[in-house]
Amino acid sequence: MRNKLLALAALSALIPAAAHAEDAARNMGGDVAWDIVSGLTTEIGQRLAGSPREAAARDWGKARLEKLGFVNVAIEPFSIRGYVRGTDAAMLTAPVPQHLAVAALGYSGTTPDAGIEAEVVYFHTLNDLKAAPAGSLAGKIAFIDHAMRANQDGSGYGPYGQVRRVGPSIAASKGAVGVVIRSAGTDHNRDPHTGATNWAAGVTPIPAGALSNPDADLIARTVRLGKPLRLTLTLTGHTQDGLPSGNVIGELPGRDPKLPPVLVGCHLDSWDLATGAIDNAAGCAIVTAAALKAQAGGKPLRTIRVLWAGSEELGGFGGAAYAKAHAAEPHALAMESDFGADRVWKARINLAPADKATADAVIAALNPMGIVASVDVAQGGTDVEPIIAAQHLAVIDMAQDGTRYFDLHHTPDDTLDKIDPAQLAQNVDAWAAVLRVVANAPSIAPVTSAK
Amino acid sequence: MRNKLLALAALSALIPAAAHAEDAARNMGGDVAWDIVSGLTTEIGQRLAGSPREAAARDWGKARLEKLGFVNVAIEPFSIRGYVRGTDAAMLTAPVPQHLAVAALGYSGTTPDAGIEAEVVYFHTLNDLKAAPAGSLAGKIAFIDHAMRANQDGSGYGPYGQVRRVGPSIAASKGAVGVVIRSAGTDHNRDPHTGATNWAAGVTPIPAGALSNPDADLIARTVRLGKPLRLTLTLTGHTQDGLPSGNVIGELPGRDPKLPPVLVGCHLDSWDLATGAIDNAAGCAIVTAAALKAQAGGKPLRTIRVLWAGSEELGGFGGAAYAKAHAAEPHALAMESDFGADRVWKARINLAPADKATADAVIAALNPMGIVASVDVAQGGTDVEPIIAAQHLAVIDMAQDGTRYFDLHHTPDDTLDKIDPAQLAQNVDAWAAVLRVVANAPSIAPVTSAK
Repeated sequence: MRNKLLALAALSALIPAAAHAEDAARNMGGDVAWDIVSGLTTEIGQRLAGSPREAAARDWGKARLEKLGFVNVAIEPFSIRGYVRGTDAAMLTAPVPQHLAVAALGYSGTTPDAGIEAEVVYFHTLNDLKAAPAGSLAGKIAFIDHAMRANQDGSGYGPYGQVRRVGPSIAASKGAVGVVIRSAGTDHNRDPHTGATNWAAGVTPIPAGALSNPDADLIARTVRLGKPLRLTLTLTGHTQDGLPSGNVIGELPGRDPKLPPVLVGCHLDSWDLATGAIDNAAGCAIVTAAALKAQAGGKPLRTIRVLWAGSEELGGFGGAAYAKAHAAEPHALAMESDFGADRVWKARINLAPADKATADAVIAALNPMGIVASVDVAQGGTDVEPIIAAQHLAVIDMAQDGTRYFDLHHTPDDTLDKIDPAQLAQNVDAWAAVLRVVANAPSIAPVTSAK
Repeated sequence: MRNKLLALAALSALIPAAAHAEDAARNMGGDVAWDIVSGLTTEIGQRLAGSPREAAARDWGKARLEKLGFVNVAIEPFSIRGYVRGTDAAMLTAPVPQHLAVAALGYSGTTPDAGIEAEVVYFHTLNDLKAAPAGSLAGKIAFIDHAMRANQDGSGYGPYGQVRRVGPSIAASKGAVGVVIRSAGTDHNRDPHTGATNWAAGVTPIPAGALSNPDADLIARTVRLGKPLRLTLTLTGHTQDGLPSGNVIGELPGRDPKLPPVLVGCHLDSWDLATGAIDNAAGCAIVTAAALKAQAGGKPLRTIRVLWAGSEELGGFGGAAYAKAHAAEPHALAMESDFGADRVWKARINLAPADKATADAVIAALNPMGIVASVDVAQGGTDVEPIIAAQHLAVIDMAQDGTRYFDLHHTPDDTLDKIDPAQLAQNVDAWAAVLRVVANAPSIAPVTSAK
């Protein structure tokens, strides 16, 4: 034992620290999943929807799936309205000069290179902004504060993410010349959380950025000084039509290729501030490794099809393109992994009443792993929801622990070191257990009940 | 009780979240300390040595000390060789394009606005760099990796900080055109740790930056791909002579003003990437609040003098200026707070053998607070070391828990939200207890033993 420890210590002196996690993943049998996350983050890097790096990721993904033994591997192209980041900068100029960490939101309006400067109007909540009189923000920059907190089930993202999704459009509709929001995130780093924003019909986009939480705290404290705040905002990126994107699909054929396949999805694109380890290289790693692991002990009855979707972050373009391209093909069931790489703690199972035995078998497979069945309705995820909706598919969600997910989501901090190899491997094990059950189910009925 | 909670809940809906920590600090009697940290970070912001904001901080400090009842409050100016940050950027261009989070080190050489591009030579350790043959880095950018880990006593900063302090000069001496190091830090954020570097005599400064830990991980992984790495490095800041700086001092006179004072120090300047909450607004807050709290129950025998030193970060200029300006005045004992705001866990006591009773009284005052006496020799700190050395002063160090200090040190993340009000108040209590003992000691001998 001592010699082994000494040998490990000697080895550790020779190789970079990052190699340790990789070794750990290998030792736990998480090779395939770890290699995908490590490969996408190291060999490709950021994979912004519509960018050349997303295209490189598609080529990488196709080659990797083929190398892993998937068949019918294909890139299915489509084009999107994308967002191309420029220079992002913000500074409080009064009453105290303070540099602020900011990131443009996807589809932000564009400032001149020299930026814009205006008085800041503080809104403690999105409802406060909604209550502001028409025209009251003319010539002003709105700041929307709020206070997202970490929950295991990620439930803060619904309400607090709304600030990002609709806040800028509301501010623009009231005359604002720019808008900054507190990041929809739960960390305390100077790293803003980007993400797409939506402009209501008839509203002209204005420059819109997210501030890191400590910068939002600073603005809130500065407001309490009782003096007018002024801000310079420089967000030179732009929205661009006709950018190339695409999905990558591949299959592990079942014993009866005529049966509708089980579809497992993730998204290949990432935000551009980091290398998208948890969002969502991990998801592609998990579904792909699990599809392979589900072959252990004998080929399942049904084909398992993996979908590495493109351009999820800007509005689910990949999922929509998949549903359109594959509308004529029946599917049996869909699942998606897009919530990081921390452990699966519960499963939401949405099978037809006729398939209760299959649902029970899923629960029986998961309970020994410490995973419980949830009473919540399964949702799928952005990349599989369109085909689920079109075909009323059965769905199982493998709910992951999201306690730290929104510390990292859409920030510069979404990097490989945030992946815990043990939890990544637990995801693969849990997914494989479920896939073995559902891919061997002779019949899986559509789910006609309202979601 | 219920009504009070409801009232608090109603209040909390109306005021920014940041106010809660402030209220908590107030409730714990930490008003003075919290108000100083909050004030410096909110009303002043970054206070880079030699900058206009450091000057603003001196004025703020003088006014605050006077408002708090200190007398003989004075600004003692001096000038320094400073560093003025420009644009910091780095990108891996081969074998994979990857944006890197970088910050110039203080006294870095200057790149053209368009940056420099060169092949990267990887060094796992500083010793590996030292072993590189003369001239072997001609035209190259050196990357120095290492692996600092968090320790409660902060002991990693000595060896791993050396990479920053001397690594760039060694790389330059071997012909490198630029150098990047893994940050001397223990976090996993995309936020580099800046800090000053030193150039050996005869070495011409080259552009020198620190990469965040995840970026250093990425380079280490990329090296393992086995292909040449190329990097563009843009660090346009410059070194500048004759910048204005200064110390702020103030006194709470003792019952016998003729007795040599107890000197308590901190530094007012901060790095420019953040607002210097833990480094070192907290130190000034602690020593100042404790000096005031030590007056409770009766004015101590000795005067307590506070020193808010300038330009510590660039080389201890404030401490040196203080020792020079006050060389002719005897001092009794010196203490400094410059390691964040987390709890004091042990005290290093360096009193002369003749003052054993005083040392025992210090220990007796601290033990009930859970603070132990350390066998280590007290060091003082950069701002008081010159006067300690000149006058062989007695020293007491209040060692703080440094477990998370190097997550934040010299990064954009050193912001007010990192201050735990309860631990800040514990510092003030512990310091006040010690000051009550030493400021009431009729005699405190010089310490002639070798440190």
